Amino acid sequence: MSHIILASASPRRKELLEQVKLTFQIRVSSCEEVITKTIPYEIVMELSEQKATDISSHLTDSEKEDCIVIGADTIVAYEDQILGKPSSPENAYAMLRLLSGNIHQVYTGVTLIKYENGICQKKTFYEKTDVYFYPLTDEKIHTYIASGNCMDKAGAYGIQCEAAAFVQKIDGDYNNVVGLPIARLLKEMEQF
Amino acid sequence: MSHIILASASPRRKELLEQVKLTFQIRVSSCEEVITKTIPYEIVMELSEQKATDISSHLTDSEKEDCIVIGADTIVAYEDQILGKPSSPENAYAMLRLLSGNIHQVYTGVTLIKYENGICQKKTFYEKTDVYFYPLTDEKIHTYIASGNCMDKAGAYGIQCEAAAFVQKIDGDYNNVVGLPIARLLKEMEQF
Repeated sequence: MSHIILASASPRRKELLEQVKLTFQIRVSSCEEVITKTIPYEIVMELSEQKATDISSHLTDSEKEDCIVIGADTIVAYEDQILGKPSSPENAYAMLRLLSGNIHQVYTGVTLIKYENGICQKKTFYEKTDVYFYPLTDEKIHTYIASGNCMDKAGAYGIQCEAAAFVQKIDGDYNNVVGLPIARLLKEMEQF
Repeated sequence: MSHIILASASPRRKELLEQVKLTFQIRVSSCEEVITKTIPYEIVMELSEQKATDISSHLTDSEKEDCIVIGADTIVAYEDQILGKPSSPENAYAMLRLLSGNIHQVYTGVTLIKYENGICQKKTFYEKTDVYFYPLTDEKIHTYIASGNCMDKAGAYGIQCEAAAFVQKIDGDYNNVVGLPIARLLKEMEQF
């Protein structure tokens, strides 16, 4: 298997790669995210590509012999609104109030850039998961925000933490909601 | 909140209760499981009730002032076949071969027995999740069985371990597949 580099600082993406027993390095992109798209799946594909491209541009010649760089980006979409990471606890409250009792979509875009003997190939894809939230009381929302587990997450919740209690059901890949569609990612890497 | 007792030895059920920040004790039922039903959701409800009833029968008078006992049982069903924990690696192989490329159902039955001032109430429910497996090569199945992560799990796989790579998508509650529909459980406890 090629040398794998994850272009993400997300501890959840790291855990998912570890869960499927991959060996990899982490390198965090510091490039500015530039969004030129408006459709959710186009946005996450665009941002995942920017991250993977930035890390790829700093690879050494010897790394370009046999290497795969993985970039990923996750957003939450509710009707016409795109929800990224909340800017404040008030913003987190507004997001969770929107999601309460409703169905929203989680999109993760993934870009793979593969180098083999100096030849470069690129592949970008996305996964969408529908998430059904139970109605939430203000008390539940405030308790959750106070836990501090929402500020670093798109849509202001983490399905893998106590916000699991908010989720009635999903339709799609669970790990896509966590931040990386790991099963699809492995399939795409095999087919490269 | 009442004193909570989990009537299960499953480390995954313990982790799910911890994930939503519940405080609880574990007591493992040693009663023999007696299955008189044939329909999957009836089987898991019956077995969850046996576990909760067994632990309840050993509560002290002071515990019966304010206490909830949680029993749970999970099975995998594929068409007419019920898949529990595999009896051998060969049996695990047969199960995973069946599930490969197909859709199966995971059923978890939960029984809550609540004591308040000596008065006892009981509630039993189940959740069903559809799980869509990618086609699996023999190599993938054998590697997974060799990891030892399949023998203690209904249907011979754990969605929360490296078998995440087998799952294309789910329709329903993810934690129900792990072994406990935690969001529904909290709802039912609140409504008691």
